[in-house]
Amino acid sequence: HMSAKVIDGKAIAATIRSELKQEVDDLKAKYGEEGTPGLGYLLVGERKDSQTYVRMKKRACEEVGIQSYGQDLPADITQEDLLKAVQDLNSNPKVDGILVQLPLPAHINEEEILNAVSIEKDVDGFHPLNIGKLSQRGRTPLFVPCTPRGCIELLRRSNITMEGAKAVVLGRSNIVGMPAAMLLLNENATVTICHSRTKDLPSVVREADIVIAAIGRAEMVKGDWIKPGAAVIDVGMNSVDDATRQKGYRLTGDVDYAAAAQVAGAITPVPGGVGPMTIAMLLRNTVDSAVRRMQKKQ
Amino acid sequence: HMSAKVIDGKAIAATIRSELKQEVDDLKAKYGEEGTPGLGYLLVGERKDSQTYVRMKKRACEEVGIQSYGQDLPADITQEDLLKAVQDLNSNPKVDGILVQLPLPAHINEEEILNAVSIEKDVDGFHPLNIGKLSQRGRTPLFVPCTPRGCIELLRRSNITMEGAKAVVLGRSNIVGMPAAMLLLNENATVTICHSRTKDLPSVVREADIVIAAIGRAEMVKGDWIKPGAAVIDVGMNSVDDATRQKGYRLTGDVDYAAAAQVAGAITPVPGGVGPMTIAMLLRNTVDSAVRRMQKKQ
Ligand SMILES: NC(=O)C1=CN([C@@H]2O[C@H](COP(=O)(O)OP(=O)(O)OC[C@H]3O[C@@H](n4cnc5c(N)ncnc54)[C@H](OP(=O)(O)O)[C@@H]3O)[C@@H](O)[C@H]2O)C=CC1
Ligand SMILES: NC(=O)C1=CN([C@@H]2O[C@H](COP(=O)(O)OP(=O)(O)OC[C@H]3O[C@@H](n4cnc5c(N)ncnc54)[C@H](OP(=O)(O)O)[C@@H]3O)[C@@H](O)[C@H]2O)C=CC1
Repeated sequence: HMSAKVIDGKAIAATIRSELKQEVDDLKAKYGEEGTPGLGYLLVGERKDSQTYVRMKKRACEEVGIQSYGQDLPADITQEDLLKAVQDLNSNPKVDGILVQLPLPAHINEEEILNAVSIEKDVDGFHPLNIGKLSQRGRTPLFVPCTPRGCIELLRRSNITMEGAKAVVLGRSNIVGMPAAMLLLNENATVTICHSRTKDLPSVVREADIVIAAIGRAEMVKGDWIKPGAAVIDVGMNSVDDATRQKGYRLTGDVDYAAAAQVAGAITPVPGGVGPMTIAMLLRNTVDSAVRRMQKKQ
Repeated sequence: HMSAKVIDGKAIAATIRSELKQEVDDLKAKYGEEGTPGLGYLLVGERKDSQTYVRMKKRACEEVGIQSYGQDLPADITQEDLLKAVQDLNSNPKVDGILVQLPLPAHINEEEILNAVSIEKDVDGFHPLNIGKLSQRGRTPLFVPCTPRGCIELLRRSNITMEGAKAVVLGRSNIVGMPAAMLLLNENATVTICHSRTKDLPSVVREADIVIAAIGRAEMVKGDWIKPGAAVIDVGMNSVDDATRQKGYRLTGDVDYAAAAQVAGAITPVPGGVGPMTIAMLLRNTVDSAVRRMQKKQ
C-alpha cells in the first residue's frame, strides 16, 4: 500500500504564526506602539463552544503580538446595542479587524450586524463587497475568508500544483465552499462545485486532482472516491459518539481518513489539518489590515 | 441523424418584451406617469458598435414603454465630467436604471465609473456588491447581469432541467461566465467552470448535460465534444471573414453549430440565440427597479 503524505496543518500554522510574529515585531520597531495590530471581538451569550473559540483566538493574538479588544455581551442584548458595539469597534483607530463570533442569538438579525462591520475591518471576509471582489477578475478583495484561505495556503505550502488541476469542492456555503471555489479558480484550477443536489457524487470526486470537502457529514467521502495521488483537504469538523473516549465523542472530518490516506497523494488529518489554519489566517488578515492602516498614514 | 431542438432566442425575447409591455402598462395605469420606468444611458465617443448597441437598446425601451434618458458624450470627456454625468442620473428620480455603454475610452478609469453607479440603479448587475450577493446563499442581489440571466431564462423557458444537472461553463469573465456559473448553482446544478488554463477541455465538456460557452473563440467547441442530448447555450459573438457575404464577414458563435446540432438535445443559434435575450433582460431589470421604486413609496 502507498500512503499519502500527511499535510500537517498544525505545523504549517505554527510556521505562519512565527512569520507573523516577526512581521508584527517589525511593525512595532518601525512605527512604535501605533504599529501594533488590533483585533476587536464581540462574543454574545454564554455558548461554551463560542467561548472556547474566542479564547483560542485571543491567545493566538497574544502569541504573535496582536492586541485584542472586545466585549463579552449578554445573550439578551438588543439589536441596537449590538450594532452600537460594532460601531464602537469601527471607529476605534486601534482596531484593525473585527470578529463577531457566530452564531448570534436567534433574536438578532445577523445579516444586519455583519453588514455593519466596516469593510476595512472585515477580517472574516464575509462582507458581500469582499465576496463580490473575490469572484471578479481584476478586482482584489481587502480580505479573504479565513478557512478557505487556509485551505489554499496548505496546498501552496505543500507544493501541490493548482494551475490546470481538476479541483472538486464539496459544499457551497458562504464561509467555506463557495469562497474556496473562487480561490481555486483564481489559482487557475478547473473547478467543480458540488452540493446536496449533486448526482453521483463519487464519480464526480473520482475525477479530482484536488478535493476540498466541506459538507459537515462525518466520513462521508470514502477511500474509493479518491483518485490515486489526489490532494485531499478535509474541512469537516464533526463530532461522532465514541464510548471509548472520556468525553464520549471524537472529532472526525468529512473524509474517511484511514481509507483515503491509502489512495491520496496528500491529505489533511482532522484534527490538526485545516482547523489551526483558520485562526492563523485570521491573524494574517489582521496584520494585513494594520499594514494597510499604517501605509495610508504615510 | 437526430437533430437538436433549436432554442429560438429571438422568439423568446419577443415574448418577454410583450410580457414587459403589459407590466409597464399596468404600472402606468396604477401610478400614472410616475410609474413609467426610466433607463438612463451614457454613450462616450463615436464607436460604431457602441452606437449601434445603444440605438438598439433605446428602440427596445420605446417598444415596451420604458422612457430613455441619457447623453452622447465626447470621447475626450474628463473623468470628473463623466462621474458628474453618472451622479446626475443617480439623483434623477425618473431614472430606474443606468447603462454605461462599454468599453470606455482608455483614459477613463472604468472601475471608478462603474462603482459610482448607484447600486439601486445597477441594471447591468456589475457592481461587486450585486455580484457578491449573487454568490452568497441567503442573499439576493438587486440585479443579475443581463447576458447570464438571459441564458438561464432560455433554459427555463425551454423546460430544461437544471436541478441536479451537470453544467459546464466555458469562460469565467465578470460579465458572462462567472455570473452564469453562480446562477446555475442557484438552480442546483453541479457546476464546472473552465477557462484558458483548463486541460483537456473536450473531455470536460463531454460530461455536461448543460453547456454554456462564453469564450469568444469562433466555433471552437466541436460536435464531438457534446454529450448526446445535452443543452447547448452559445454566448459567443465572433466575426469571421467570409468573402461570400456582402459585409465581408459573418457572425458565429463559440460552438460549431452545424455539427453540435446533430448531437445536442437543444441548442441556441448565433445570431438569434442569446443576443436578443441580453437586451430583454436589461428591460426586465429596469422594470423590476421601477416596481421597487414605487413599492418603496407606498
Ligand atoms: N476547520 C475549520 O476551521 C472549519 C470547519 N468547518 C466545518 O466544515 C464543514 C462545512 O461547514 P459549512 O460550510 O459551514 O457547512 P454548511 O452546513 O453551511 O454547508 C454544507 C454544504 O455541504 C453540502 N452538503 C450537505 N450534505 C451533503 C451531501 N450529502 N452531499 C453533498 N453535499 C452536501 C450542502 O449542500 P446544500 O447547499 O445543497 O445544502 C452545503 O453546501 C462542517 O463540518 C464545519 O464544522 C467550518 C468552518 C471552519
Ligand atoms: N450575446 C451577447 O449578448 C453577448 C455575447 N458576448 C460574447 O461572449 C463571448 C465571451 O465574452 P466575454 O465573457 O466578455 O469574454 P472574455 O474575453 O472576457 O472572457 C473569455 C473567457 O473565455 C476563456 N477562454 C478564452 N480562450 C479559451 C480557450 N481556448 N479555452 C477555454 N477557455 C478560453 C478565458 O479564459 P481566461 O480567464 O483564462 O483568460 C475567459 O475566461 C464573446 O464572444 C463575446 O462577444 C459577450 C457579452 C454579451
